[in-house]
Amino acid sequence: MKRSDKRKVIHSMKVGIALVLVSLLYFIKPMYDQVGQNGMWAIMTVVVIFEFYAGATLGKGINRGIGTLLGGAVGCFAAILADRIGGIGQYFIISSTVFSFGAVATYCRLVPRLKKRYDYGFMIFILTFNLVAISGVRMDKVVGMAVDRLTTIGIGFAICISVSLFICPIWASNELHYSTASKFHKLATTIQGNLDEYLKIASEKENQVADSSSIDYIKACKSVLNSKFIDESLANNAKWEPWHGRFGLYYPWDIYLEVGEHLRELATTLLSLNACLQSPKQPSAMKRQALKEHCEVFMLTMGWILKELGEGIEKMELCQTKDLINPKLEIVKLLLSPRLSSSCEMEV
Amino acid sequence: MKRSDKRKVIHSMKVGIALVLVSLLYFIKPMYDQVGQNGMWAIMTVVVIFEFYAGATLGKGINRGIGTLLGGAVGCFAAILADRIGGIGQYFIISSTVFSFGAVATYCRLVPRLKKRYDYGFMIFILTFNLVAISGVRMDKVVGMAVDRLTTIGIGFAICISVSLFICPIWASNELHYSTASKFHKLATTIQGNLDEYLKIASEKENQVADSSSIDYIKACKSVLNSKFIDESLANNAKWEPWHGRFGLYYPWDIYLEVGEHLRELATTLLSLNACLQSPKQPSAMKRQALKEHCEVFMLTMGWILKELGEGIEKMELCQTKDLINPKLEIVKLLLSPRLSSSCEMEV
Repeated sequence: MKRSDKRKVIHSMKVGIALVLVSLLYFIKPMYDQVGQNGMWAIMTVVVIFEFYAGATLGKGINRGIGTLLGGAVGCFAAILADRIGGIGQYFIISSTVFSFGAVATYCRLVPRLKKRYDYGFMIFILTFNLVAISGVRMDKVVGMAVDRLTTIGIGFAICISVSLFICPIWASNELHYSTASKFHKLATTIQGNLDEYLKIASEKENQVADSSSIDYIKACKSVLNSKFIDESLANNAKWEPWHGRFGLYYPWDIYLEVGEHLRELATTLLSLNACLQSPKQPSAMKRQALKEHCEVFMLTMGWILKELGEGIEKMELCQTKDLINPKLEIVKLLLSPRLSSSCEMEV
Repeated sequence: MKRSDKRKVIHSMKVGIALVLVSLLYFIKPMYDQVGQNGMWAIMTVVVIFEFYAGATLGKGINRGIGTLLGGAVGCFAAILADRIGGIGQYFIISSTVFSFGAVATYCRLVPRLKKRYDYGFMIFILTFNLVAISGVRMDKVVGMAVDRLTTIGIGFAICISVSLFICPIWASNELHYSTASKFHKLATTIQGNLDEYLKIASEKENQVADSSSIDYIKACKSVLNSKFIDESLANNAKWEPWHGRFGLYYPWDIYLEVGEHLRELATTLLSLNACLQSPKQPSAMKRQALKEHCEVFMLTMGWILKELGEGIEKMELCQTKDLINPKLEIVKLLLSPRLSSSCEMEV
């Protein structure tokens, strides 16, 4: 079973466990006597906030908690105000607050910066506000109802978080960490693949249709290119995660995103380079042979450096070959400098 | 106010209207007598399924409906079975079904193909199944409860869909259509920008720091490059949308996605080209002047073709200049052919 599949199974079982735990609220008589039908809010909380990554679960749970608290408080206020006014006026008060709070909070959900982290919180705010304010028209004990629901939501949240964090936690931060490291390896593979393809052409073999290995490394490169959205969502979840791993709370997530951005730029260049290699027009044999050696040195060095950097990030160590990398880069620069400039001339 | 801001305001007001409409279930006495506290399920439905795009709302609503139906039916079955067995056995039956259905449905939510379109449906299935099966332990009229809730969910769905579809609908399909057309324009602008920058260098001006216009077109090009996720989600929502617009139900969404993929490839190339222009090493004045004319013809023609294609897509017309495009492409090919091959030689 692949690692990602194993994690999916673990997550599914954890959700099952959390659901069984929350159902105890109904099964154990003294508990049911306490919470009654409000137990369903606990079930609902477990179902909707239990996400794959621990950080996402925590983020959604906190959003739900704060959204419920705020929505409940404002809703109670509106309900009490409407109750004081009474008569037809109360319907007017409730309708206008329902409309305005609903519209404003919905607008907030569409603001990119707020949406990124607090989308769910705003939704729960609207929901709770409406339930409390509108039910207030037909119920006397609005505050009591709000408190009861909040308690059971709290129970659901506690169950969720305990299962998510303490049984084989799946960290978004680890995922982002390792996926960033793996991007270096993927690009190194792409460089190697491009080099192999060039050498194949240089050694005068027929320019065949792209074989499966070439499709593989292009796929890897494209997965790096399209990683922006996943990276941002992982970083977003990772920021909610509690102290763990080597850096504790001090993982530099923004730097991870920045590194990702640079790697995507490199992926862009490598894909263009590969497109050149796929072109039916290839340079003459003489020119290719002349470039072959420099090309090899350049590509192999770049691939080696990427691999070293990726390994350093993966193991969270200061790059051990740091002192080797800089001189290598210098040599490559010197070696290729006349070539680079002349190739640039033709390219532009 | 920008068009996108205006749409956000419209959406927010629509949500407000739907919330006020659904609150009538509580305000109008005869209606409240019918639905009672179950009215909260209607409120909940409106809050959670009302999305920005009509297609997303419809998709979520249908998912919610089917999820509730299936979950309710299976839950009733489990509850009745448990009731027949009675005693401690019923707890065992309920717990084991809660665990297994919860785990299996959660696993389904993680399968990419199912997740894409039915994620919400699976979640609602788990939720309803649990609510019905677990409540069954403490309630006699499980079937009645399920039917009542389903009715109010139906009312919430009807309100949502009516407001979403009949008051200034915001179609995901239009968004995908126009954003695809605008990608052509963005890339045409990038080609023009690259050309301007090259001519600036060619006319021996100092290679200045990238000015704001150059940042603009690079931004536009990068937005095309990073459009994959948004495109896929729009296509996904568009598929739920009812008959509208010129193609009715027969918009070729998969072809839109394919075109997007090709445009992203072109964006890759243009970004690499721009990186070459930013390089401190530039070809000699003589070489640049020699290339200038061909370069201009090539870039202007490509930009023109892209704009024509974009306009054709935007207006949904057969490209009127189709007969002009092919010969232009042929001329460009002929004109540049020796240059291209020699530039390729140096590039590799």
